Amino acid sequence: MQLLEDRILKDGKILSGNVLKVDSFINHQMDVAFISELCKEFYRLYKESNVTKIITIEASGIGIACLAAQQFNVPMVFAKKSKTSNISNDFYCCEVESYTHNTTNKVIISKEFINPDDRVLLIDDFLANGKALLGLKTLVEMAGATVVGAGIVIEKGFQPGGELLRKNGLRVESLAIIKSMSVEDGISFI
Amino acid sequence: MQLLEDRILKDGKILSGNVLKVDSFINHQMDVAFISELCKEFYRLYKESNVTKIITIEASGIGIACLAAQQFNVPMVFAKKSKTSNISNDFYCCEVESYTHNTTNKVIISKEFINPDDRVLLIDDFLANGKALLGLKTLVEMAGATVVGAGIVIEKGFQPGGELLRKNGLRVESLAIIKSMSVEDGISFI
Repeated sequence: MQLLEDRILKDGKILSGNVLKVDSFINHQMDVAFISELCKEFYRLYKESNVTKIITIEASGIGIACLAAQQFNVPMVFAKKSKTSNISNDFYCCEVESYTHNTTNKVIISKEFINPDDRVLLIDDFLANGKALLGLKTLVEMAGATVVGAGIVIEKGFQPGGELLRKNGLRVESLAIIKSMSVEDGISFI
Repeated sequence: MQLLEDRILKDGKILSGNVLKVDSFINHQMDVAFISELCKEFYRLYKESNVTKIITIEASGIGIACLAAQQFNVPMVFAKKSKTSNISNDFYCCEVESYTHNTTNKVIISKEFINPDDRVLLIDDFLANGKALLGLKTLVEMAGATVVGAGIVIEKGFQPGGELLRKNGLRVESLAIIKSMSVEDGISFI
């Protein structure tokens, strides 16, 4: 999506360790009007999929998922990172490794918020190794519901997540896919 | 606000320890269309205040703050809970106690996202002992910016936060203020 690629080139910052900082408009400060435009594109891509629910994972996915839910006119649910080791029987739970923080979190969704007849669109800001998205997919499938696909703002095409998930049969639509990036040569898109 | 009080009475659940669960429509599953209506009320209350930025704290404030930012047509910034003890000089940082989780978190905002001429509206889902809001106010004031007030979805009027902050001179607008609640007698509003 040209609008997004232009903005990444203008305001994104490349740090060492394959980190792309977009925290001036996506995941610390949020340019809400801009992200609404991105969400219109998610709607265009998935409007035939009879989406009944948007699901994301805290924290940086929440704002984007909210604005996407507005486009689809459906509720949004965010999976929570649980601090406790004892998860009650009221929750679906799985473990997710975080690439950014190099930690493993228990991620939970209350059973009452996913129904077997839900058709879920997963939303997240980044797709890198795909662990967060895979975790969300697992939670939805534990409920017997259907994942219609994923809507990602920025996919790191040089990391394995996108290929892994698509090979698994998941429809993944990323608004920008980064082919390569480095402090020296900047960013190129697929 | 009648719309909100009705919804709390219909869908809120009272748990022991003064916990009000509204996670079917506010802070786990989010009824985005409903929350947009709440945010229109925040706009009505603060539209004369020349708000230039909405600030909240992760995670459950993010969605509400996003929808509020949409009403005011300004950017939103969410303060992050930091996992590291070493905070770089690029961030404003303060400590905030969490009532719900009984923990203390370092909360940070990147210095580049608050300017001295910003007029900030603080947004959060709950106001109980006021520590989160006080922390956000501190961060904004470290930047030399102005806090025009706070917009709260649900204030627990029987806990000290609201009175504390108003005595401090902060304008606090809560869309519902709970006078008392108990499993036996239900909820009453101020």
